Amino acid sequence: MTTVALPRSSAFTDAVIDMAHGAGGKASRRLIEGLIVPATMAGVAGEGLGDAACLTVGTARLAITTDSFVVRPLRFPGGSIGELAVNGTVNDLAVSGALPVALVCSLIVEAGLATDVLRTEMTAIGVAASRAGVLVVGGDTKVVEHGKADGMYITTTGLGQVDPRTALSVAAVRPGDSILISGHIGDHGVTVLLARGEVDLTANLRSDTRSVYPLVRALVDAVGPDVRWMRDPTRGGLATSLNELARDCGLAIVLEEDAVPVRDEVRGACELLGLDPLHIANEGQFVAVVAAESASRALDALRRVPGGDSASMIGRVEVAPARTVLAVAPYGGTRVVDMLVGDPLPRIC
Amino acid sequence: MTTVALPRSSAFTDAVIDMAHGAGGKASRRLIEGLIVPATMAGVAGEGLGDAACLTVGTARLAITTDSFVVRPLRFPGGSIGELAVNGTVNDLAVSGALPVALVCSLIVEAGLATDVLRTEMTAIGVAASRAGVLVVGGDTKVVEHGKADGMYITTTGLGQVDPRTALSVAAVRPGDSILISGHIGDHGVTVLLARGEVDLTANLRSDTRSVYPLVRALVDAVGPDVRWMRDPTRGGLATSLNELARDCGLAIVLEEDAVPVRDEVRGACELLGLDPLHIANEGQFVAVVAAESASRALDALRRVPGGDSASMIGRVEVAPARTVLAVAPYGGTRVVDMLVGDPLPRIC
Repeated sequence: MTTVALPRSSAFTDAVIDMAHGAGGKASRRLIEGLIVPATMAGVAGEGLGDAACLTVGTARLAITTDSFVVRPLRFPGGSIGELAVNGTVNDLAVSGALPVALVCSLIVEAGLATDVLRTEMTAIGVAASRAGVLVVGGDTKVVEHGKADGMYITTTGLGQVDPRTALSVAAVRPGDSILISGHIGDHGVTVLLARGEVDLTANLRSDTRSVYPLVRALVDAVGPDVRWMRDPTRGGLATSLNELARDCGLAIVLEEDAVPVRDEVRGACELLGLDPLHIANEGQFVAVVAAESASRALDALRRVPGGDSASMIGRVEVAPARTVLAVAPYGGTRVVDMLVGDPLPRIC
Repeated sequence: MTTVALPRSSAFTDAVIDMAHGAGGKASRRLIEGLIVPATMAGVAGEGLGDAACLTVGTARLAITTDSFVVRPLRFPGGSIGELAVNGTVNDLAVSGALPVALVCSLIVEAGLATDVLRTEMTAIGVAASRAGVLVVGGDTKVVEHGKADGMYITTTGLGQVDPRTALSVAAVRPGDSILISGHIGDHGVTVLLARGEVDLTANLRSDTRSVYPLVRALVDAVGPDVRWMRDPTRGGLATSLNELARDCGLAIVLEEDAVPVRDEVRGACELLGLDPLHIANEGQFVAVVAAESASRALDALRRVPGGDSASMIGRVEVAPARTVLAVAPYGGTRVVDMLVGDPLPRIC
């Protein structure tokens, strides 16, 4: 689901929607804050929405999140649209401090799609849901004429139960807090890009698609309310998530660039393609802000979970420069890391 | 959301997905029961799903429903995709006996769409949600290349709180029960068909899109647990909803054909086009099965609600012929009313 901050932005004045408006970066933010939120969500109060919206129904504290998946191609090394549609939604709930409980999936299928392709993705949804410990409780299927979709699109909505031990909020982020990442970044985006065969590159890479709930759970078990904020850096990558954090908390995020885990294959592909790994989408990672005094304990907890061995402490929150993300290079030198601009990797999820 | 009954059907063996699989009739049912449910929902128990899935989280009894809207054209007399996307989801919650609480909306937008078109639909969502008394609490926006969608598709998921006074179930339906409809049928489907300009017909018709919650609420207030079952007859029309009911409860549904409210314009267009009004989609009606002794009280309650003046008692539940819908003509003569077969009116919602 899309991050939405305080609707203090100016009206959206672009005349036409283009690919960048769906890339999760600056243009997406302008569209959402300048048009979609003012028009549809006038009645919603609060500091804005994160990966999921939290609400109380009866006595239950719930989280709900929705995402459409339009990845191309439908299958790629390490995953497929069906797995993304489960894990992406599960992860939005997890980083919102919620136990994923139930999913509903709505399909838009292009007439002419081979049933075997659909069956494979439905099976992928079932397997991924079972692995993530959530039930698919309902769905919908629409078919549009051949040429009016691209194989299939899947929209998944997840319902979760908020863990009472968490109180996640950008307002809780303090100077001195530590920033942790759950593992290597950029694997998903580069894998999908290469799977399209449009660039003359090969690499031994797989999408990182997975449920991060076991990692989040271990973190919350270990340090509870000392987890201030979490986000899964999908479209727009880690750079965009951290810029949103910096903007929303009014502080500076300072990254130790060589502490950010990036595989050689991802780094190499990004260099050749002129991309920054910090802007590449992930589908099985999350970034967390943790109180400094709990950071080591938090990191140990993450590393003990299967799949958490490359979790790393990658930076800290500082007072200045406010609303800015900086990356400090190993041998000195500091650069400003911006949000994603444009859409170098369309339809990555 | 799609109705799913006991997964007792045989495997889905069609090689390719075609428009009929999205029409809400027989082919949809085969796809859902023969492929989608077995693959994705293996862990879900119960008698099957209705318009929404009901589940308990903590101490809250919740309903959740999802639907993708792909209507063409985006706007038509009386409504637009944005209004459908709110009302359709609200109605699925309402007929499941739930108070609609919150919505999330996910957009798939085609690159090149004029921002004004998007703005108009976002405003329509905001206005419809406000009218229906629900909050839009979140969303997602994806953009696909020009030619990979048809303007825009909207997937809306709704969360509701189940009214403890209701215990809706096909298992509660008894021979002798009365069947009520909330108003005229067929307005939506015929309006959208004519708005496409593909047939040489005009008629003074508007879509019936609206929230049926006030009507459902009045019904439940009046007769409470004597409401056995409700459904909003969208794709596939009233005939398909009643066939699903007949199949799932193992009884006969006998309609008094001239008691079913159909406007002259709808009847005329259907005659010219070779369609049965009972197969035409509605977006602002619901059908209810009510205990016979409460039927008059139920009908009075519906008719007192603004917009409920054409509510009618249209038939009754009988023992035989089991799993069959019959329509009795005014001057005698009985016909079997089948589910929708094929897809005469694609992308009606």
